[in-house]
Order: sequence, then structure tokens, then C-alpha cells
Amino acid sequence: MALKARALYDFNSENPGEVSVRENEILTLYGEKDIEGWLEGVNSKGERGLFPASYVEILRNDAASTVNNNSCIDNLSKPSAPAFATFSQPLQQPQHHSYQQPSQGSDDDWDDDWDDSSTVADEPGTIGGRYHDYEGNGPSTYRVTTSSVSRGNAQQAKSSATVSRNLNRFSTFVKSGGEAFVLGEASGFVKDGDKICVVMGTYGPEWQENPYPFTCAIDDPTKQTKFKGMKSYISYKLTPTHTQNQVNRRYKHFDWLYARLVEKFPVISVPHIPEKQATGRFEEDFISKRRKGLIWWMNHMTSHPVLARCDVFQHFLTCNSADEKAWKQGKRKAEKDEMVGANFFLTISPPPAPLDFQEVESKIDGFKTFTKRMDDSTLQLNATVNEFARKQISGFKKEYQKVGMSFKVLSQAFEMDQQVYSVGLNQAISFTGDTFEAIGEYFAEQPSKDLDPIMDLLGLYQGHLANYPDIIHVQKGALTKVKESQKHVEEGKMDRAQAEGINDRCNIISCATLAEIQHFHQIRVRDFKAQMQHYLQQQITFFQKITGKLEEALQKYDNA
Amino acid sequence: MALKARALYDFNSENPGEVSVRENEILTLYGEKDIEGWLEGVNSKGERGLFPASYVEILRNDAASTVNNNSCIDNLSKPSAPAFATFSQPLQQPQHHSYQQPSQGSDDDWDDDWDDSSTVADEPGTIGGRYHDYEGNGPSTYRVTTSSVSRGNAQQAKSSATVSRNLNRFSTFVKSGGEAFVLGEASGFVKDGDKICVVMGTYGPEWQENPYPFTCAIDDPTKQTKFKGMKSYISYKLTPTHTQNQVNRRYKHFDWLYARLVEKFPVISVPHIPEKQATGRFEEDFISKRRKGLIWWMNHMTSHPVLARCDVFQHFLTCNSADEKAWKQGKRKAEKDEMVGANFFLTISPPPAPLDFQEVESKIDGFKTFTKRMDDSTLQLNATVNEFARKQISGFKKEYQKVGMSFKVLSQAFEMDQQVYSVGLNQAISFTGDTFEAIGEYFAEQPSKDLDPIMDLLGLYQGHLANYPDIIHVQKGALTKVKESQKHVEEGKMDRAQAEGINDRCNIISCATLAEIQHFHQIRVRDFKAQMQHYLQQQITFFQKITGKLEEALQKYDNA
Repeated sequence: MALKARALYDFNSENPGEVSVRENEILTLYGEKDIEGWLEGVNSKGERGLFPASYVEILRNDAASTVNNNSCIDNLSKPSAPAFATFSQPLQQPQHHSYQQPSQGSDDDWDDDWDDSSTVADEPGTIGGRYHDYEGNGPSTYRVTTSSVSRGNAQQAKSSATVSRNLNRFSTFVKSGGEAFVLGEASGFVKDGDKICVVMGTYGPEWQENPYPFTCAIDDPTKQTKFKGMKSYISYKLTPTHTQNQVNRRYKHFDWLYARLVEKFPVISVPHIPEKQATGRFEEDFISKRRKGLIWWMNHMTSHPVLARCDVFQHFLTCNSADEKAWKQGKRKAEKDEMVGANFFLTISPPPAPLDFQEVESKIDGFKTFTKRMDDSTLQLNATVNEFARKQISGFKKEYQKVGMSFKVLSQAFEMDQQVYSVGLNQAISFTGDTFEAIGEYFAEQPSKDLDPIMDLLGLYQGHLANYPDIIHVQKGALTKVKESQKHVEEGKMDRAQAEGINDRCNIISCATLAEIQHFHQIRVRDFKAQMQHYLQQQITFFQKITGKLEEALQKYDNA
Repeated sequence: MALKARALYDFNSENPGEVSVRENEILTLYGEKDIEGWLEGVNSKGERGLFPASYVEILRNDAASTVNNNSCIDNLSKPSAPAFATFSQPLQQPQHHSYQQPSQGSDDDWDDDWDDSSTVADEPGTIGGRYHDYEGNGPSTYRVTTSSVSRGNAQQAKSSATVSRNLNRFSTFVKSGGEAFVLGEASGFVKDGDKICVVMGTYGPEWQENPYPFTCAIDDPTKQTKFKGMKSYISYKLTPTHTQNQVNRRYKHFDWLYARLVEKFPVISVPHIPEKQATGRFEEDFISKRRKGLIWWMNHMTSHPVLARCDVFQHFLTCNSADEKAWKQGKRKAEKDEMVGANFFLTISPPPAPLDFQEVESKIDGFKTFTKRMDDSTLQLNATVNEFARKQISGFKKEYQKVGMSFKVLSQAFEMDQQVYSVGLNQAISFTGDTFEAIGEYFAEQPSKDLDPIMDLLGLYQGHLANYPDIIHVQKGALTKVKESQKHVEEGKMDRAQAEGINDRCNIISCATLAEIQHFHQIRVRDFKAQMQHYLQQQITFFQKITGKLEEALQKYDNA
């Protein structure tokens, strides 16, 4: 059977050799091993080409590959799928909404969570906003098999889960490990150095500040070759301020690190690394643009109290690239890190006072609305700014240069006047022509100085905004479990201690989520303030330069 | 028989009720009397409407109306047309150019003189540049009937002209009176006050400066009515500095004055008055534009040493409009002025030393080339500036406002963030949005401040440039007569005294022409210098205003 993969995101081919893929599209692969982060395969239209390996997940069993025909998605929510659930479902589905069709299963969960109608958990009776609708609405017959979960063995624990489990195994709540953690299935040995503190700040929970803040410079990349010139690649020189030791890293290292971070931190918005590009990888423009993107990325990494300190990132920043053994050792260690996903939450130490979940829910909902609005407005701003840059480079430049040229033509005509007393005027008009041509050039050059950085900023934040639906999903999933467990306790189906455990763990997830949101707002305000100031300063300099040039031209008329 | 008129210039209808006419087109009139400078009639396509009275000449006899079928134009150069010539033509036309067809007559003279191939005088053997080709090239049998011309009676003198006369009675050289003057047919009583001195200046002949320079303000026009509101018109308040008495004048007065000036001064470039407009005459935009045009016109009138001082202009500027009798008296006097056309040259007193005609010819040719180049370049500049203004009003404004709007949308999204510490940033971004919207407005408003005046200037000079072919034509015609007379003297067909008279009179025309060209260059340098300075100053102010606005926006981030 051919190796298949499912596209996780849309990818639009931009270069020859690439092939576009749509989210959820099933692809046939030519091989499992990626080439510099790219996989080769055939999409559902039969088009063959490259696509980023990180945009797809390889399907390793039949169950997964049947997703292709969409028929199993409905099945996933049926209790008859024993692979996904070890507990009994209600024998009778409550028919609380007349328009709800039985076939309307967990498909919604495949979509991005921006849609307000999407649900966090799929079981009837556990959907956040609809929670209270269910009181007394038909029998709820969840059977509690064990009242406590062994921390020692998550694998075993799975088979003795006590509250309903999300049946959609592609749900972020499940995949991130959020569900496993809430249900008490996470286990791992937390070293003191791994402890991550959430403290109560002025505006709510926040990540404890990094006591040893640092930044990291990314110097001009150089083209390197290996295998006697058979393979070439771009190497970036990284110099972190806390070690002052330069290390060389390739894009694939960034890509590897990114994958580790995303895997490890379920409720942290890992900044997206600049996009992959198969062709033109060695072109100056592309390299310069990628470097700028990596600088932005690095800035967000080092600014983050949790990401900045984590082992894999430190290994990436500090391991001498020449010491291949040390590098591989650290790499293997990171890949075998147990404190990822569900276990990551074990490392979080929340503030002493637990949060009020109603307040948390309101905050999260507010943030969700906010991110939607911010996403819309940054998209719009990005389109406007992009068009504005294009206009300045083409239209504005052309207009000023046409005016400049016409002044020059006039001065050339005037030079034929045979009158000595007009020589000064002719020269001044000619200079004015040059001036307007120069102003046209200024307009064309300006966007790279002020609009491009804005677009870089917007791109980075669009990446963050794309992360948040999943983060919110995890927190909402946890909250749903709390509500569910409360109901079970009320109904006598769950003991109070177990419910309190769920409560505590939801508190940890909520603290981490709110700390992350708080961090997002803080760097957002910092970044947008800095970038708006930079833009305005650049614009002021730009218009002052024009004014100066015009003043110079005006002076030429003094003795004309 | 219906009243006919011939179009002197192209007129493109711009408003409903107007009809387009082409140069030389024959029109049928509904009446001879113009309404506010407009005539009503039917063009050759059968379209009925208004056209400017000054664009046509009314045809008052059959001979003129036959121009319609173009058949008489060739006839005009034939000796068998006794109405136009009283002397014998060569019996045999020299066939000096193989491509010259017999039918190629004086049609060329109808065209504008920009074309280098056009001729000044139509008789073979008298064409400027070809003059020497004719030496010994076939017999030249001009018969000299009288050796001296009586100054007492130009009408009688005509019948006893001694050198060839231009056979195209529509030739500017003929119409202007230039030919009549050169041939010694002009006559009139020159009062001391009418004397116009051409002096030798640093750069050649110039008009003697006006010893009593003045300017004239044109204040905001008001709408007036007469016949108890039956008729309304716009009245302009004129205040000349030398009288300080305000007079009211209507557009039709300007139009009348313009016609007098054009008639009177054959080699002076009378500035064109703003264009006529049948509809929308009372609209504010139009009135404001016309007033600006009249100010430019007035500036050129008062700057001109000859025009500024002439009686009809002084009458126009100083006669109390309430004193209808005085106005009519002055009007009648101006219309009966004998010192117009040919006789105008009688009033000119040249510098003592006669000019070197070869040098004059070279200067005139140089100026002709110059005007052609200036005409091309001002046309191009006008088109560019017009387009630039349009772009600023539409495209530039739109781009800045779109950016402003996008910033505002972003600030509105940010206002949903529930974070107190970002209030300052949100307000600053919102202010930045307003700033860019304001900058868009600035761009849209700017052209009326700096590009419109440039277009007004270019329009005025395009009028002057349109005058010069005729002026050059008159001087070239005179020079042709000199060459012709020299040849006649050499051949013993003309006595030396008569030739000297032609020489002297050509010297007067040449002095006046060069003085006018010198004046043109001086006001051109003055006007373009002033206007370029004004434009640059306005642009500097404009960009400083933008910079100031951006600085204001930047400050908002200080405490954000």
C-alpha cells in the first residue's frame, strides 16, 4: 500500500516543482524522508510535486487513511468504535435541538475554531455554552469505572478513564495532551529546573519573568557546501548575548526546533518560522527576507519567559555546531523529552489561589473575539500596506518622474532661447527636473524601509493568531471536563476528590493559557508600538528628505 | 442668401448648446449679432449651435463665400484674378523643382506657420531660403509701374505698387498690414503721444520701458442684472494702481478690447483672454477660474510697454462705467482708430543704427525653433501636470486614506483587548489613522495650490506661442520684400531710393519684432522663475505640513 499523508494546512505552490495542497487532502507520498523539509508526492488531483513536510501528517495505519473518504468521521463519535473509548455512552442521544441531525458528528472539529458554532468537546451535554440546556434533558448514563487515576502509567490509565473522553482523536484538545492531563493521565518526573511558574500579576496570571534575559543576533547568512560541493546550504550565524558564542544554524535546524517546541508546549504560541521555499533558496532577496523573518522569530523566542529558557532552545542556541556528537546528543535528548504535551502541564506551578473559572471563561471568550477582530484587521492592513507599497514603487514613482522629465524637457527647450539672462533659470528648472526624478526614486525606495517591516510584523502576528484557536480549544476542553465532572458529582457518579483533581488540573491549564494570553498582549503592545513609531519616524525622515531636496531646488532660483 | 461665416480656428464644443467648428469650415448664421460673444449657426455637418464669434469671420460678399469649395485658393495665385493684383506676373513659371505641381498653390499659407516647409510670400523667386536658386533661372518680368508711392492715399497707392504683392489675401503678412506698410502704402497722422520707441538694449532692440508702470487688481466678480433682472452677467471690479479708481468690466468688454488690440498691433503678442463658455457661466468654479485667467491676462497687459500705454487699454481701465456717454465715445474712437495694422508701424521709432538683416533673420529663425520647442515642451508639461493633479486628487488620496482606514480598523480591533495598558497605543494608532486620512486630503487639495497655477501659466504661454507664427510671418514677409527689391535694383527694375524705403520700413518691422521677442523672453523668464519658485515653495509647505502631522502622530506614542 502506498504511503499516504493528510494535509494539515493549505499550501499554495509558489515555485516550479511545488504542488498545492488543501487542508485535509490526502496525498500519496514517494517517500517518508523529507528533503530539506520538503516531501514529494501526488495530490488528489494527480499533480505531482513538492510540499512542506510540516504541512502534512503521514498516515501510518488503515484507520487513519480511511479519513480520506470521510466515512469514518461520523463513526468516530459512535460508541461502537472501541479503539477510541473504553466507557459506555448514553444509550439514548438527547434530541435537544430539532435541527440536529444524527450524522452531524465531529466534522466541525476539523475546521478552524474561529467559527463560533464549532464545539470543543463532542459529547452531548458537555458543550460549553449549552451545558445548562441538558439539565434533566433525558438520561445521562456515564458509568464511572475508577475514581482515581494512577499517575504511574498513562498507558494503563487510559483504559480506566472516569469521565467522557473526546472521541475525535484529531481534536487539538486530545492531540495536545490537554485531555490526558485533565483526566490525570499525564506522568513524568519534574526536575526543579523544569518548573515553570505562573504568578499573579496586575492583570491576572502571567509567566514568571526570565531572570536571565538575553537576546540573540542573527548575522548575514553565508552559503556553505558539504560533500565536496555536492550539497550547498545557507548557514546563519547566531550569537546569543548570554553566551557570546557564535553558532551556525541552518534553516532545517530552525525547522526541527520549531517542531519540538510545537510538540512540547500545548498552550504556548510558538512563533512561526519563515515559510519554506524549494526554488530560489540561494537568491539574495529570499535570503535577506528569510533572515529578517528569522530575526523577528528569534526576537519572539527570546522574549518569551518559557520558550527562551527551555532546554531544546538552549541546546539550539549554545551547542557548538562543530561538535557533532554534542549536537546529536542534545538532539536525541530533545526528541525523547518526556515532558511534552500532557506532561508539559506537570511542570507548571500555578499561583496559590485558584482562578474563578467563570471569569476565565469570560476572559477567554473575550480574547477569542479579540483575536478574530485582530486577524481580520491585520489581514486588511497587510493587504492595504502591500498595495500601498506596490503603488509607491510603480505609480507614485512614475508620476514624480514624469513631472521631473517634463521639467527637464522644458529646460532643454528654454536652453535654445539664446538669452544669457535665462541660463540660471534653465539650470534651475533642469535641477528641479532632477529633483522630482529623485523624489520618484525616494518613493520607490521607501516601502522597503517602512512598509516591509510592518508587513513582517503582521505576518508574524498572523502566525500567532493562527495558533490561538488550538490554545483556546485546549483550555475550553479542560473547562468542559470540569463542568462535566461537576455534573457527575451532583449526580453521584463521580467522587468529589476526583472532580477536585480535574478542577486543579484545569486551573493549571487556565493559568498557563491566561499567562500566555497576557504575554501575547504585552509583546503585541510592545511590537506594534515600536513598529508604528518606526514607521512614523521613517515617514518623517522620508518627507524631510523630500523637503530638503525641494529646498535645494528652490535655492537654485535665487540667482536665476 | 443666408449669411455665411468662415471658421478662423478650430473650436471644440464643450457644453450643451455649443457646436464644434473646424478651421476654414463655412457656417450658416442665424444672425449677425453676437450674444455675449457667441454666434448661433449651422456647421457643414448640419449641426446647429453656438460658437464663439471671434472664432469666425462673417463673409460679406460672393468672392469670399466661394472659399467654401476651396476652388478659388489656387486661382488666387493666378494672374487672371485682377481683384487681387494690379501687376503682371512672369509669363512662364520657373520649373525649379521637379516635384512641384502646378496645383500646389498658396494653400500652405492657410496652415500654421510652424511647418518649416511653409512659405511666407507665394510668388516664385521670392521665397526666403530659396531666393538665390532663382538667379538666372528663367526670365523674371515684373513690371515696375511707379518708382515712388504716395503716402497721402493708400487706396490709390495700391494700384501703383512696384514690387510683387502677396496674392493670398488671407496671408497674415497681408492681413496684418505688414505688406502694405513695407510697400509704403501706410499713411496716418502720428501724434507725439502715439510714438513708440524701440531702443537698443544689451540684448538687441527692446521696447522703451513704460515710464509710468502700473498694475491692475481684479477683485472678486459679482453677478449683476439689468433690464429688471431679465439679463444677468458677471461684473469684474478693476482697480488700476495709477488711477486708484475702480471700474466695472464685463467679459464682453475684455473680448472687445482684445479684438481691438489684435487688430491694432501686427507684431505684438496680445495675451489671449480666458476661453468663452456658453453654459455654466455663473458657476463658482468657472467664475473663479476665469478671474484667475483675467488676472494673468491683466498682468501681461500691464507688463507690456506698448500694450500697457495704448489708448484703448487706458480707456478700458479708466473710463467710469457709469458714464455711458464717455464709454461709448472712447469705444467709437478706438473702433475708428486709424493707427492700426499697417499704420501702427508708422508710430514706431527705431534706434538710429539700422539692423543687420542677416543677423535679424538668424535671430528670428532661432526664435522660431525655440517657440516650436517651447510649444512642444509646455504641451507635454501641461499634460503631465494635469495627469499628476488628477492622480493626487484620486489615486494618491485614496491610497493614503486606505492606509489611514486600515490603521483605524486595527485600532478598533485593539480596543477589544480588555487591557488597560494598551489604551494609549490604541489611541495613538487611531490618531495615526486620522493622520493618514488627513494626508490623503492634503494630497487632494494640493494641486489647486500649486499645479493649477502652473497650468494657468502654461495656458497663457501657449496663447503667446500661438501668436508668434503670425508675428514671424509678418517679419519674414518684410524681409522677403527687401530681398526682392534688392534683386530688382540689381536688375535695374527698381530705383535705389525706393529699395531703401523698403529697407527702412523692413528695419522698423524687424526692430518691433525683435523688441517683442525680447519682451517675450523677459516676461517668460520672470513668469517661469516666479511660478517655479511658487510651486517649489508650495511643495515644501505641503511636505512640511505632512511631516508636522506625522510628528504629531509620533508624539502620541510617547506615553502609549
